[in-house]
Amino acid sequence: MALVHHPVVDKNGETIAAAVTALDLHDIARASKTFGVNAFYVVTPLEDQQVLIQQIIGHWVTGAGAEYNPDRQAALALIRLKPSLQDVLAEMEAAGEGRPRVVVTSARIEKSDLNYAQLGQMAHSDRPVLLVFGTAWGLAPEVMAGADFRLAPIAGRGAYNHLAVRSAVAIILDRVLGNGT
Amino acid sequence: MALVHHPVVDKNGETIAAAVTALDLHDIARASKTFGVNAFYVVTPLEDQQVLIQQIIGHWVTGAGAEYNPDRQAALALIRLKPSLQDVLAEMEAAGEGRPRVVVTSARIEKSDLNYAQLGQMAHSDRPVLLVFGTAWGLAPEVMAGADFRLAPIAGRGAYNHLAVRSAVAIILDRVLGNGT
Repeated sequence: MALVHHPVVDKNGETIAAAVTALDLHDIARASKTFGVNAFYVVTPLEDQQVLIQQIIGHWVTGAGAEYNPDRQAALALIRLKPSLQDVLAEMEAAGEGRPRVVVTSARIEKSDLNYAQLGQMAHSDRPVLLVFGTAWGLAPEVMAGADFRLAPIAGRGAYNHLAVRSAVAIILDRVLGNGT
Repeated sequence: MALVHHPVVDKNGETIAAAVTALDLHDIARASKTFGVNAFYVVTPLEDQQVLIQQIIGHWVTGAGAEYNPDRQAALALIRLKPSLQDVLAEMEAAGEGRPRVVVTSARIEKSDLNYAQLGQMAHSDRPVLLVFGTAWGLAPEVMAGADFRLAPIAGRGAYNHLAVRSAVAIILDRVLGNGT
């Protein structure tokens, strides 16, 4: 799984590098650990943001936080910091199981080409899958267009669909990897 | 739905009043709005925390935030502040649809007596349902014991089960009210 901070778009559709939110790292790492995700890639090219992420990981995985809260340690140990999605793909491919299939998510996908049952089957096959989430107002158009698959958006009970990325990750992991009952 | 800050337990099982986390209000309000929840009750007896919650609501619902982000306004307008669960039940009962059935949630329920399909049926019946989540390390034992039903915990893919309450709310609302595909 990857949480991308660049390239993403802002409220006006301009491509930006979003700031890292500490709670994203905690919540998404805990959901990843709960649902058995192998790695949680946090993607940002900004060096000051990389330092911030390293500090958070350092505190909870090897520092004072590890003793205070071993459950948090186990979750945050899944985080791998990368400057770009290309670096994530290169690392995954180097593991020797083939080039991962890239599945992007967005609340605004009009033409999706993958549903949750299909993603579930894919997740249980041999070839690795990289599920990609964007921060801010979502992944930049070229990331959406360049992916192998676009996952169907989470549908609510009306026109309103503005979940936090933390909530969307939790729901999608539960739909794909949870037991549901 | 209700998010309870007292009585909940801390890491050692002692009953406490937990501090309010601003992101809980945002994330859970957005998930509530997305899945068509009628009201999001935030429960705390602490007056300084009530002031904080009122400030957050004021900014986003009637203040500068409302114009900046109308989607956030629509979500946070679902929040109703109450000092206790009893006050929540009294308000719901005063609406004239009968006393709500109280369903509590916890990651540590050993003897649950309600599954997600059953809760889904209940949510679509005439009588109101109050779904209750605890902050910190979860609802106090007397709240768990005194409820009408104890919802089955979210099962992950192993022994690890430490979701943020924000993530648990999102998953449970999706399981009960979402379309799932």
